[in-house]
Amino acid sequence: MDARIKKERRNFIKTAAVGGLLSLVSPQLLSAAPDVKSAKITLSENDVILFQGDSITDAGRNRDNRDFNQAGALGRGYAFLAASELLNKHADKNLKIYNRGVSGNKIFQLAERWDKDCLEIKPNILSLLIGVNDYWHKHNGSYTGTLQSYEDDFRALLNRTKQALPDVKLIIAEPFAVNNISAVDRTWYPEFDHYRFAAQRVASDFGAVWIPFQKVFNGAQKKAPGIYWTTDGVHPSMAGSQLMAKEWLEAIK
Amino acid sequence: MDARIKKERRNFIKTAAVGGLLSLVSPQLLSAAPDVKSAKITLSENDVILFQGDSITDAGRNRDNRDFNQAGALGRGYAFLAASELLNKHADKNLKIYNRGVSGNKIFQLAERWDKDCLEIKPNILSLLIGVNDYWHKHNGSYTGTLQSYEDDFRALLNRTKQALPDVKLIIAEPFAVNNISAVDRTWYPEFDHYRFAAQRVASDFGAVWIPFQKVFNGAQKKAPGIYWTTDGVHPSMAGSQLMAKEWLEAIK
Repeated sequence: MDARIKKERRNFIKTAAVGGLLSLVSPQLLSAAPDVKSAKITLSENDVILFQGDSITDAGRNRDNRDFNQAGALGRGYAFLAASELLNKHADKNLKIYNRGVSGNKIFQLAERWDKDCLEIKPNILSLLIGVNDYWHKHNGSYTGTLQSYEDDFRALLNRTKQALPDVKLIIAEPFAVNNISAVDRTWYPEFDHYRFAAQRVASDFGAVWIPFQKVFNGAQKKAPGIYWTTDGVHPSMAGSQLMAKEWLEAIK
Repeated sequence: MDARIKKERRNFIKTAAVGGLLSLVSPQLLSAAPDVKSAKITLSENDVILFQGDSITDAGRNRDNRDFNQAGALGRGYAFLAASELLNKHADKNLKIYNRGVSGNKIFQLAERWDKDCLEIKPNILSLLIGVNDYWHKHNGSYTGTLQSYEDDFRALLNRTKQALPDVKLIIAEPFAVNNISAVDRTWYPEFDHYRFAAQRVASDFGAVWIPFQKVFNGAQKKAPGIYWTTDGVHPSMAGSQLMAKEWLEAIK
């Protein structure tokens, strides 16, 4: 766990205790997010890789083009950038790479389209980045799901996936936000952090490779201000997308 | 000069001599393409980088978005991929990166839109990839320009550029084709090679950094067949675009 998470964790527990709210907090929240030490994924010939998530994964892809390895179908974000690198570097492996991120999606909406947009594709490697809308849309009053339903639905989706595709290798990327940029302000904290911790617990419990995007965006702000890396605190700029792609590629040997 | 060029060059001279055509060949064609040894370009703070060219540079960019550093405005090709890497790696430099490639363009069409699409942008670093259409459209009968006019127009454009922007650093990328894929067949050779040689002579004479794309695509075919790297012999696949971006980035320190 990095120092920032530890501090916020402490502050949260303090606030909750002082406010007498401790009994309302799920026991899972009180366990610190595990420090996931994931093994990297070794690519094999004919691997099928699927990127799933919300607008950050979608990134303006042409949804009418459901093909693999095509620029229009892969969008303009981290999935396209990471896929381009994989297809060049592993040209001998006959990889097939798909993007099925859909703008605005929360975890329950992945579940609604999972047969068509995951199970039928039969990925060997499934990458998920989901959760910022589960928090954001609750925060702005347009969604009634909770932290608990986010984590429960995430686990249910992965159990369903493992049942259909027992050998699938999982990559779970951390939902992230950049504070003080447009859509994101201090009212997001500490609640949003607990969505990050929940995703990390799920990754740990399902043996997924964990991509620590929040840490990466925090570190990047030492080089350039937050607005350089994200347009609105949630969606990455070109620089931010490449930052993500490089970190995502760390999951692959 | 690599072995492949040397061999084709020899064959061309032999063919020309045997056919009694030697007197029709410009003296410039008979000089071997120079072996350009370019120094790399060091980026400075506030550098403005402009990608210019045809459809390979354009790569589906939104031409209504004339802004810098924006995914939609940069397209889905090597320019976007190289720009993403630069913006992430050099986050401290306040770079501005533009794409003004236009599908179908030949050298004379760059000249027609040069004030608006280059000189007004005032790039510190100008990258050009132009020439495949100058040959292709001549070959298919839709264009009457020649090898000589390609080289002459290229030189005139760079002289005009240097006059307006004396300190501009130039990058010239080699027009390339992948033989036996769709649009490209043996009828392209050896004539198409001489467009490559012309671009290389221009790069050498103007002190430009030279990007040897043909060599790169030739080498890549040891890892995967031509159709993996280009959809039609002229336009790169995702893997081909990343291959190009990586080579382009070699121009930058």
